[in-house]
Amino acid sequence: MNKQILLASRPTGFPEESNFQLVEKPLPRPGEGEFLVGASYLSVDPYMRGRMNAARSYADPVKIGDVMTGGVVGKVLESRHASYAAGEYVVGQFGWQQYAVSNGAGVRKVDPSVAPISTSLGVLGMPGLTAYFGLLEVCTPKAGETVVVSGAAGAVGSYVGQIAKIKGCRAVGIAGDDEKVQWIKNELGYDAAFNYKTETDYRAALKARCPNGIDVYFDNVGGPITDAVFSLINSRARIGICGQIALYNLEKPDMGPRLLQQILVKQAKVEGFLVFQFASLIGMGLRDLTEWVKSGQLKYREDIAEGIENAPRAFFSMLRGGNRGKQLVRISEL
Amino acid sequence: MNKQILLASRPTGFPEESNFQLVEKPLPRPGEGEFLVGASYLSVDPYMRGRMNAARSYADPVKIGDVMTGGVVGKVLESRHASYAAGEYVVGQFGWQQYAVSNGAGVRKVDPSVAPISTSLGVLGMPGLTAYFGLLEVCTPKAGETVVVSGAAGAVGSYVGQIAKIKGCRAVGIAGDDEKVQWIKNELGYDAAFNYKTETDYRAALKARCPNGIDVYFDNVGGPITDAVFSLINSRARIGICGQIALYNLEKPDMGPRLLQQILVKQAKVEGFLVFQFASLIGMGLRDLTEWVKSGQLKYREDIAEGIENAPRAFFSMLRGGNRGKQLVRISEL
Repeated sequence: MNKQILLASRPTGFPEESNFQLVEKPLPRPGEGEFLVGASYLSVDPYMRGRMNAARSYADPVKIGDVMTGGVVGKVLESRHASYAAGEYVVGQFGWQQYAVSNGAGVRKVDPSVAPISTSLGVLGMPGLTAYFGLLEVCTPKAGETVVVSGAAGAVGSYVGQIAKIKGCRAVGIAGDDEKVQWIKNELGYDAAFNYKTETDYRAALKARCPNGIDVYFDNVGGPITDAVFSLINSRARIGICGQIALYNLEKPDMGPRLLQQILVKQAKVEGFLVFQFASLIGMGLRDLTEWVKSGQLKYREDIAEGIENAPRAFFSMLRGGNRGKQLVRISEL
Repeated sequence: MNKQILLASRPTGFPEESNFQLVEKPLPRPGEGEFLVGASYLSVDPYMRGRMNAARSYADPVKIGDVMTGGVVGKVLESRHASYAAGEYVVGQFGWQQYAVSNGAGVRKVDPSVAPISTSLGVLGMPGLTAYFGLLEVCTPKAGETVVVSGAAGAVGSYVGQIAKIKGCRAVGIAGDDEKVQWIKNELGYDAAFNYKTETDYRAALKARCPNGIDVYFDNVGGPITDAVFSLINSRARIGICGQIALYNLEKPDMGPRLLQQILVKQAKVEGFLVFQFASLIGMGLRDLTEWVKSGQLKYREDIAEGIENAPRAFFSMLRGGNRGKQLVRISEL
């Protein structure tokens, strides 16, 4: 049987268990040109909150009754596809379920000898590539510049600061608890960091940590943290908008200070991006990321929940910042 | 004697006559390596409002008691500078005064046989170049795309729509009275336009005029008009922030809907720019603009106030949108 988690209803505000439904379906069979994947790990990520809404954002919403969307790494168990053989590991958007049938679209093979396969959902996968392209292609940091990262202990943010350091920048992180602040400073090499839940004056906290102002801002969160960063940007600052998690669970649109005048005065560039924009460069990205992981310059940690039944709880925890590193769900030991 | 207008005090909110002081000073004399300019026309522009504030924006504020800053075209009356001869016309930041001494820094010669010298402050000057570089270099419109322009009947905006048409785009303008709306549609070739002072639902007004969404937005005004535009941008939209005149006279920072989530979802790029960024390209810009003016593809009109005494009133009128085309002040018939 194939345990699946379906979208049962659309949340208002923060999602709840009742928005999901666990079902068991017969094991799917691959047709000609298809293969069967057994899931090893499921990734839960902030973007999934947007897919639970009825409105289209950059992608279509998950339909009520459909399997929740999600990146999965797993093993090919049976193949009727010429390019995939049983026993190979693959990563793809297989969804919140134990087994999936795929025709190979959007699937990438994973070499388990390079790094643990779980990294294909993290540092050597979508979050790693998001950090890599968002920082290097969108924000174009130069050595000596100050790079501020919000959500700095999250999967993406934890890589961004390290890549900024590899490129010779000063990295300043904002995170949601003291343990995370210590981790990114002591383990990941962030030059400075603070806990936004205990700091009351974000602008002062940033100013103290960015004596030369802010040249690059990699934004994962939005809201008041981002407002404070904008007040301190240097001329020709580059701001990459990767996420706005502070806003995802609001029930009505949020108001804030208008930022365009500051963008004008500073001749700044603000750009929203999705990792898919850089599809043609993935080879380069993975090559660099893999090299940095192997050399120890790019560290990662994983927070692994056990069993598909726990995927909703792992997802909620991640949305609240409860995770310690990349949040994964172990589906099986395959 | 040299009549000058000084900054007498800093405005709170909309500026008043009392913020300026008219004085008469002795005629300045050029030293070695300098020349004396007699002003023909003074340009009054939105950016001047920012220079009246104490806070530094992209340039230093005008000091209390200093001559107000401003672009002027005039005639060289006397020269002790090897590169400038009496009788030549020059444009430069000579300020709100009848006469100025210059060493040539930031000065450009004007050929009166190409076009009336007043155009060196408008379509063939800073506003024309702002439109040209802001649209073509920052917003990179492609033929067939929809370009929305706010402040579309202002000096810069009136050129932007015409350049968009030259490049094969659909141009949609937003202006502040019916005469301006008719002018930009009937004379300048905007495909559609509306009066934001009589429209109550900006989003609906835009949606009706932009059936294929908005690919490029050239923003001169900010505020609720801009909020409405953001709600209709297409994927990979490019937004050039040239001005935020709706905010310049506010006494406290304005709040508005947060826009970064929309920037993210649409993978849009928002960039603030100043014409000075493109200094190295001015030759190319003036060449194209001049050709388009000569061919009749790029039209302009001027609103000329008489006498330096009227500069403050012309400035206030321009800030309120009372001008019909580029607002100038005739200083003398030189």
